[in-house]
Amino acid sequence: MNKEDINMTKKIGILMGSDSDFPHLKGMIEILDKFDLKYDVDVISAHRSPYKALKYAKDAKENGCGVIIAAAGGAAHLAGVIASHTTLPVIGIPMPSVLDGLDSLLSTVQMPKGVPVATVAIGSTGAVNAGVLACQILAVSDDALSRKLADYKIELAEKVDQASEKVKKIL
Amino acid sequence: MNKEDINMTKKIGILMGSDSDFPHLKGMIEILDKFDLKYDVDVISAHRSPYKALKYAKDAKENGCGVIIAAAGGAAHLAGVIASHTTLPVIGIPMPSVLDGLDSLLSTVQMPKGVPVATVAIGSTGAVNAGVLACQILAVSDDALSRKLADYKIELAEKVDQASEKVKKIL
Amino acid sequence: MNKEDINMTKKIGILMGSDSDFPHLKGMIEILDKFDLKYDVDVISAHRSPYKALKYAKDAKENGCGVIIAAAGGAAHLAGVIASHTTLPVIGIPMPSVLDGLDSLLSTVQMPKGVPVATVAIGSTGAVNAGVLACQILAVSDDALSRKLADYKIELAEKVDQASEKVKKIL
Amino acid sequence: MNKEDINMTKKIGILMGSDSDFPHLKGMIEILDKFDLKYDVDVISAHRSPYKALKYAKDAKENGCGVIIAAAGGAAHLAGVIASHTTLPVIGIPMPSVLDGLDSLLSTVQMPKGVPVATVAIGSTGAVNAGVLACQILAVSDDALSRKLADYKIELAEKVDQASEKVKKIL
Amino acid sequence: MNKEDINMTKKIGILMGSDSDFPHLKGMIEILDKFDLKYDVDVISAHRSPYKALKYAKDAKENGCGVIIAAAGGAAHLAGVIASHTTLPVIGIPMPSVLDGLDSLLSTVQMPKGVPVATVAIGSTGAVNAGVLACQILAVSDDALSRKLADYKIELAEKVDQASEKVKKIL
Amino acid sequence: MNKEDINMTKKIGILMGSDSDFPHLKGMIEILDKFDLKYDVDVISAHRSPYKALKYAKDAKENGCGVIIAAAGGAAHLAGVIASHTTLPVIGIPMPSVLDGLDSLLSTVQMPKGVPVATVAIGSTGAVNAGVLACQILAVSDDALSRKLADYKIELAEKVDQASEKVKKIL
Amino acid sequence: MNKEDINMTKKIGILMGSDSDFPHLKGMIEILDKFDLKYDVDVISAHRSPYKALKYAKDAKENGCGVIIAAAGGAAHLAGVIASHTTLPVIGIPMPSVLDGLDSLLSTVQMPKGVPVATVAIGSTGAVNAGVLACQILAVSDDALSRKLADYKIELAEKVDQASEKVKKIL
Amino acid sequence: MNKEDINMTKKIGILMGSDSDFPHLKGMIEILDKFDLKYDVDVISAHRSPYKALKYAKDAKENGCGVIIAAAGGAAHLAGVIASHTTLPVIGIPMPSVLDGLDSLLSTVQMPKGVPVATVAIGSTGAVNAGVLACQILAVSDDALSRKLADYKIELAEKVDQASEKVKKIL
Repeated sequence: MNKEDINMTKKIGILMGSDSDFPHLKGMIEILDKFDLKYDVDVISAHRSPYKALKYAKDAKENGCGVIIAAAGGAAHLAGVIASHTTLPVIGIPMPSVLDGLDSLLSTVQMPKGVPVATVAIGSTGAVNAGVLACQILAVSDDALSRKLADYKIELAEKVDQASEKVKKIL
Repeated sequence: MNKEDINMTKKIGILMGSDSDFPHLKGMIEILDKFDLKYDVDVISAHRSPYKALKYAKDAKENGCGVIIAAAGGAAHLAGVIASHTTLPVIGIPMPSVLDGLDSLLSTVQMPKGVPVATVAIGSTGAVNAGVLACQILAVSDDALSRKLADYKIELAEKVDQASEKVKKIL
Repeated sequence: MNKEDINMTKKIGILMGSDSDFPHLKGMIEILDKFDLKYDVDVISAHRSPYKALKYAKDAKENGCGVIIAAAGGAAHLAGVIASHTTLPVIGIPMPSVLDGLDSLLSTVQMPKGVPVATVAIGSTGAVNAGVLACQILAVSDDALSRKLADYKIELAEKVDQASEKVKKIL
Repeated sequence: MNKEDINMTKKIGILMGSDSDFPHLKGMIEILDKFDLKYDVDVISAHRSPYKALKYAKDAKENGCGVIIAAAGGAAHLAGVIASHTTLPVIGIPMPSVLDGLDSLLSTVQMPKGVPVATVAIGSTGAVNAGVLACQILAVSDDALSRKLADYKIELAEKVDQASEKVKKIL
Repeated sequence: MNKEDINMTKKIGILMGSDSDFPHLKGMIEILDKFDLKYDVDVISAHRSPYKALKYAKDAKENGCGVIIAAAGGAAHLAGVIASHTTLPVIGIPMPSVLDGLDSLLSTVQMPKGVPVATVAIGSTGAVNAGVLACQILAVSDDALSRKLADYKIELAEKVDQASEKVKKIL
Repeated sequence: MNKEDINMTKKIGILMGSDSDFPHLKGMIEILDKFDLKYDVDVISAHRSPYKALKYAKDAKENGCGVIIAAAGGAAHLAGVIASHTTLPVIGIPMPSVLDGLDSLLSTVQMPKGVPVATVAIGSTGAVNAGVLACQILAVSDDALSRKLADYKIELAEKVDQASEKVKKIL
Repeated sequence: MNKEDINMTKKIGILMGSDSDFPHLKGMIEILDKFDLKYDVDVISAHRSPYKALKYAKDAKENGCGVIIAAAGGAAHLAGVIASHTTLPVIGIPMPSVLDGLDSLLSTVQMPKGVPVATVAIGSTGAVNAGVLACQILAVSDDALSRKLADYKIELAEKVDQASEKVKKIL
Repeated sequence: MNKEDINMTKKIGILMGSDSDFPHLKGMIEILDKFDLKYDVDVISAHRSPYKALKYAKDAKENGCGVIIAAAGGAAHLAGVIASHTTLPVIGIPMPSVLDGLDSLLSTVQMPKGVPVATVAIGSTGAVNAGVLACQILAVSDDALSRKLADYKIELAEKVDQASEKVKKIL
């Protein structure tokens, strides 16, 4: 078994603070499926199910997780609480809120020295990017995945060209 | 031993995310001393010492705490993390930060349904008020403390009159 | 009559600045009903009915209130004005506004030294939490209520587990 | 006694939430002195001395006030509380705060329907303008004061020309 | 003809930056009609019709205006531009915008020393209050109008009582 | 005389709302001197010297101006007021303020349809860029100036390399 | 061929970060058509098609562009990235976003020393103004275009008068 | 040579937009030194040296980089521009600015779908965390590094205990 295989066995742990967050995360699931990555999904609230959060984070590494993604809104502590209990990289997605997600963003990104959360954009855009970032992290030691990301970059550029054709036809 | 005595035995647990927060909390200590309340003080970081946070919150009630005050800045999760592990009222003081405490405020106040944090003003003003609010909470079932708060209200009004004299003299 | 009974006789005073705020407060009413707490509800405007505000606050304690909850939006002065006339703990709910409730939040939380308002989240989330916080405050000297809050915490965690099941089924 | 005399007898009531606000108000005092207007100055806190606030506002008209100016910071309720008890025009000056006066501004300006506060700029700039606005209000029925304001406008333009000379000399 | 009559002949000049602002101003028109005040209404853009703005402001006083109200959104310069050409009090209403009116508010209220704009709340709430404030300003030298404002204050309080009845019935 | 000469004769009109803005504009002056551009400098307040503003803007084109730069803070109307009276491109520099220049920025950039202000960054950074942008605008029909801008771009890149050397030496 | 003809041959390059931005840009197209200006339109993403962005910017001048307009939202880097590769004036339109365009605005306007982006208002208002600003820039050396802009200013004022008639009829 | 060795040979590329950013990054350098990680440091401006940025990003992977860290302020495009040219994970540090780093944060984090930037806190706190996050990313496939991170977590908790002792001694 070679190095890439080993990494491919690392899965991505996806957490959300509420099941109402799930629709915003679909683009992320599509990305992970597209890259044939393994993941599991759970609803964990930093405040309403703190022991579940603790247990999840503490065991994540030995459960085979390589990266954890946590989506939460408002006083969005989920990513930070998870990060306090693991040495794995934790990606935080600030969810839309009554303040348009500004509270979620600041609660996620402004972490104190020593305990980072890798924060992405607010809402469904951030969810897609959390998926891509998780791939990029796993790809650091996985050349096959890295090549898939290079192909994805080409696709992104091609889609821009297609959008360009579309707009030019309208005029 | 009557009801008031029982309540007087309840102490106030004061937590701060970093010892650099302590100078902002002096006005609170003065208030608690003025009202002859018992308190203990500890430094606990929601992110750097999460087990200490958990343990403190879980044991607070049986350790004799009636109210917990938590001061933190930035992605200020301390009050929320404490609140997730106790049924005691938790008061959150948002500390000044690189964003003037706006991040601290939103991270403290925008808690999800079921797990409130009683948030006060940013910084040293909020610290004093956390002290007063803790007294008010304990005074709900303690008439002697309630009378002290009534006297304090009179003092506040008298200080305004003194300030008024001062300004009128300048003109 | 024991101490717990005494506390159970303390009611919660619920105020809102306008009857249009009422729909946002339903989750709070449900919480208070769930915990068998007594409450009364009134519409009082700090600015349009200032004498009613003053009278309500001044008499609240002798009318049997243990805690006051005040919901208001915009230049949300209601909680602060009530707090200026009573030594009871006052909980402020910032209501949604043309600025998404940011003005309501700052007007409620940034109180001067000596007169705290225990501020919760903006809107209906905050309303639920105002209810929970009021229970927590009364429970400081009421062990039966405290046990109900402990049960409520377990319920919250169970609901997270149910949400988890729901999400896992979708995938 | 003619109309102008009657108006000149109307004085301007100046209130501040704390004597620490006074240094910011000096430019206003200079303006009022320049226009030979009568004024009195007092420190009144909406929250710490609410009865004094009520009494001041209720009696202001019969005490000869034509306009009231109120300066306060943070959850700046002073102008709004005064406005709730009088039919006189109330000018609010948002004072600098830990949030640069944004909280003070929103707490002052976002008043509910029926109870306006005429809000000016944050801090010492606003203080000068509160003075000018008070003059403009009294000048509505006072032609002599109106002429002084016309002269003041000319002065302002001349000072701009002087500043222009200064800058051109530097180059 | 006595002083009050003279003042009653003073009219209120109402300006808006765009006819799309008009629906937000209806509550103001109702207030002015209720108080039997005279007014005229015009659309003037500080930027698209600057000469009209200048001419309006310059002539307002001799055209019988006592107060000018200007509503504008975005980089809301209308009130400030009008204020630069008249010594009459100018009331600014920040209109809703792509940034929820925050840009409109700051552009209206943060005027430089010497040229105040009496700013009220964002949108239709502010429009009603602009109407009330204009009445308050004219009432400084008009006792009959002042008495109407006192009656209006009573009405406001009564409406709060009616709202209170409504809410109590629902429960 | 060829086209380039004609353009070189177009000067840049520099306006500031107050002589206290001048120190922030020094980097702009250095840029204009570096590119051998002609300019004049004046202090004009949109609100305190509105006629001077009108006259300056109205005559700017026939006075030989090709571009106008206007720096102002707070409710920063200067650039907008100038733009309302000229068809020349107007560049606005939002100056630092009590709100860190956010009010200045929004007051400058959020102009209504038909009357743009080309807004640059807040403060001295924006001032330098206003100078560069003015050059870029004049260079549209001036190839010699355009070549100077190309050289400037190379200089900018070289300075980055020098900074790089500096940092590498420290490590 | 005279100077004006030469300038008329300069076209305006219009870029948008996504084809979903196109509906917001229609008012700009109408302005450019109204002034008989030449333009081409393309979709280019600073992040998803960076080479296309680089190539477009580098070749724009020799492809006959006189001005470039770039519309983008969120972390809106498009205008800045284009500006880094050309000496032509670049106009940035901040597009609406999950944060109402505040992120787009700050990402577009706060450019570092040496590389300006001429920023206009958020959204479709800014799009129209980007068109007008592009005309103003080309008109610096094109008197015929300048006269059209003068006519446009008159039209703008006339439309205000028509809006005025409309409002006066409603009352 | 085993997998861990391979990963240890991956270095961290550190970029800053200006050498004035360097003092804020010292805590990051200390972290990387503490974990015996390899890194190189460079000054690259997205706008002033765009080709250097492109070249750096394009070659980073084959130059042995596993992760790139980019610090920039204002319209902070550096991390995004780098991310557009590489499939490596890119960490963005928003630097303090005239708007306290809010512009830097939004410009860094709000990236469009497909091109994430892993954003950390504003300023020197974020810099330390960028270092820790880079370690966490490399540690995904490096158990020795992972164990060092576990030790670091213990150290963090111990420092909290030391701070606690310090505070308790003061009281």
